[in-house]
Amino acid sequence: MHHITNYVTVNDCANITMCFGGAPVMADAVEEVEEMVAMASALVLNIGTLNRAQIDSMLMAGREANRNDVPIVLDPVGVGATAYRTKSAQALLDGLDVAVLKGNAGEIGVLAGTGGQVRGVDSVGISGDRRRVAERLAERRGCCVVMSGATDIVTDGKRTLLIDNGHEMMGRISGTGCMATSIVGSFVSVSEDHVIGAAAAMAAFGIVGERAAREGIGPGSFKCALFDEAAALTPVDVRDRAKFKVARE
Amino acid sequence: MHHITNYVTVNDCANITMCFGGAPVMADAVEEVEEMVAMASALVLNIGTLNRAQIDSMLMAGREANRNDVPIVLDPVGVGATAYRTKSAQALLDGLDVAVLKGNAGEIGVLAGTGGQVRGVDSVGISGDRRRVAERLAERRGCCVVMSGATDIVTDGKRTLLIDNGHEMMGRISGTGCMATSIVGSFVSVSEDHVIGAAAAMAAFGIVGERAAREGIGPGSFKCALFDEAAALTPVDVRDRAKFKVARE
Amino acid sequence: MHHITNYVTVNDCANITMCFGGAPVMADAVEEVEEMVAMASALVLNIGTLNRAQIDSMLMAGREANRNDVPIVLDPVGVGATAYRTKSAQALLDGLDVAVLKGNAGEIGVLAGTGGQVRGVDSVGISGDRRRVAERLAERRGCCVVMSGATDIVTDGKRTLLIDNGHEMMGRISGTGCMATSIVGSFVSVSEDHVIGAAAAMAAFGIVGERAAREGIGPGSFKCALFDEAAALTPVDVRDRAKFKVARE
Repeated sequence: MHHITNYVTVNDCANITMCFGGAPVMADAVEEVEEMVAMASALVLNIGTLNRAQIDSMLMAGREANRNDVPIVLDPVGVGATAYRTKSAQALLDGLDVAVLKGNAGEIGVLAGTGGQVRGVDSVGISGDRRRVAERLAERRGCCVVMSGATDIVTDGKRTLLIDNGHEMMGRISGTGCMATSIVGSFVSVSEDHVIGAAAAMAAFGIVGERAAREGIGPGSFKCALFDEAAALTPVDVRDRAKFKVARE
Repeated sequence: MHHITNYVTVNDCANITMCFGGAPVMADAVEEVEEMVAMASALVLNIGTLNRAQIDSMLMAGREANRNDVPIVLDPVGVGATAYRTKSAQALLDGLDVAVLKGNAGEIGVLAGTGGQVRGVDSVGISGDRRRVAERLAERRGCCVVMSGATDIVTDGKRTLLIDNGHEMMGRISGTGCMATSIVGSFVSVSEDHVIGAAAAMAAFGIVGERAAREGIGPGSFKCALFDEAAALTPVDVRDRAKFKVARE
Repeated sequence: MHHITNYVTVNDCANITMCFGGAPVMADAVEEVEEMVAMASALVLNIGTLNRAQIDSMLMAGREANRNDVPIVLDPVGVGATAYRTKSAQALLDGLDVAVLKGNAGEIGVLAGTGGQVRGVDSVGISGDRRRVAERLAERRGCCVVMSGATDIVTDGKRTLLIDNGHEMMGRISGTGCMATSIVGSFVSVSEDHVIGAAAAMAAFGIVGERAAREGIGPGSFKCALFDEAAALTPVDVRDRAKFKVARE
């Protein structure tokens, strides 16, 4: 799975992808991204530490992904915090056929144009009903939208699933948002239905977080346990422990 | 807390910042650093893997930080090892109003112009009395200087504090120097007095290191424990275990 | 030890180098690589996330390394997956006097021109006898070739050693290939005989992997244990547990 992503959490993304059975590739040079993405199962674009050369590579890789029916998952990290992030995320959405757009409430609110507040890379608020905001953006953009939060919302504008898995420890280490995006990429690459694929990915990672957390665990040990539990997770675990709710079908 | 830092230890810096309650942001594109830093609590500049575009971003972000009274913490990693590092660190010190300058003995010696030896990114020696070197540089640059070592020296040229916390295991993993700088940023962002803030940060991280080390622990387990202990540290722990000595007041 | 390497596994490479007693330096700006490499014990070049500026820095650093008799270890990550990787790896091999060239079977096969298949950064096959392919490439390039795999092959075209250490868990986390290259750099820097040095490095890391793996361990805990075991490894451990076989002398 081809990633063009930030240099902060890239190692975590590579390792979590491997835990879920994928083969991570990180490559961002304009000279090679087209060739690399053509044989990928999915393309994950994450703008956490964006710059001009990287956005160019994302557009180039994304167009080639579209030509080859390689699904694109976009994580518009920190969109709304700066005009440059907003402009870049919109250029990616306008220029590419994105399969799944995944962000926190603030980021999705900003892209929906309904109001969202982002400080740094963290959501600090959103105007309006979260579910409606996600559904309208999905409808308008013609893609699957994942709005992460205590309850994750996954929707294509027609069908909406709510996922209640996860643990608050996941918010106490760096990289869980990016890792979730990579897992969405892994699941979407083997699932025709993006809503089901993305929802299963969010549930799966939430269950991993629940299992990794135990009374009094610190963030260093929790992060280590996250990879252990991810590698140990079985489809049966996901089936038995996923807390899905159909909000709209 | 906004970081413009190296790609080697950036993940460690993000996680340790979160352990101390901060919200790390890593962003280095010239297109957005000014906007990003304007809402930051502190700006950490670390030249571990510097390049021209990054130094430009540091200067741009730093000037905006100064305009907004956002304190700047500079870690001139490896200064003295190459002419380019020395030139770049001096350009940052000349162009910006730096709140805290933190380096090892060799790095501080190089910047003080009193002689310091740096090989790669490690200090291999310093000419003259360490404390005096730090005090004179602080006085000349009008900032707080932290010279890390077995005994850390924190001074603004008038007052000088010595901190005796820490553990030798901290020198056996990559990133502890950079993490200490991030913690100084966190403390300085909530402390009017930079000498007290920086000294408390160095003591706090030293205590974390003492607690994480246990008989026979290896570097992998030690690094994991470092994050656990950092997240568990309380103000009372720092008060009770900090080994401060006032050398000049 | 000077690295010019990818941003995915760079932290792992820094830490494993320290576990083996080395002092890692990561620096890639054209303005400083020559000065930095001149005082290095070895230069590790890894093209995992290559780009044009980085290849320029590698060539510049490599030429200076050659002038100063600093041994170069090259890991042509993903060569064959894209034309750009192949062209870049060949430019490095043509322009520099490389001491050790280390890759998986697919990568070595591509560089040998005897046929190799690489998908992303993973080997998916090689045409012909693995040992012969490595030996011929070593002979043609006049360097030591390490072909990693279940059995590692180390050869200079005249002598060939086979190493049977290692554990399948090493393939389940990101970065073990890159870490092995860094360890080869550490060993080659203190060993006149590159074949012996590289073989000892591969055996040493294989033993570390064997010790870190235990029944049912997950990838997060395994990675942590890898650094612990690396730091604890003694020359006696390597002597007693290395599984060398001389295939050609």
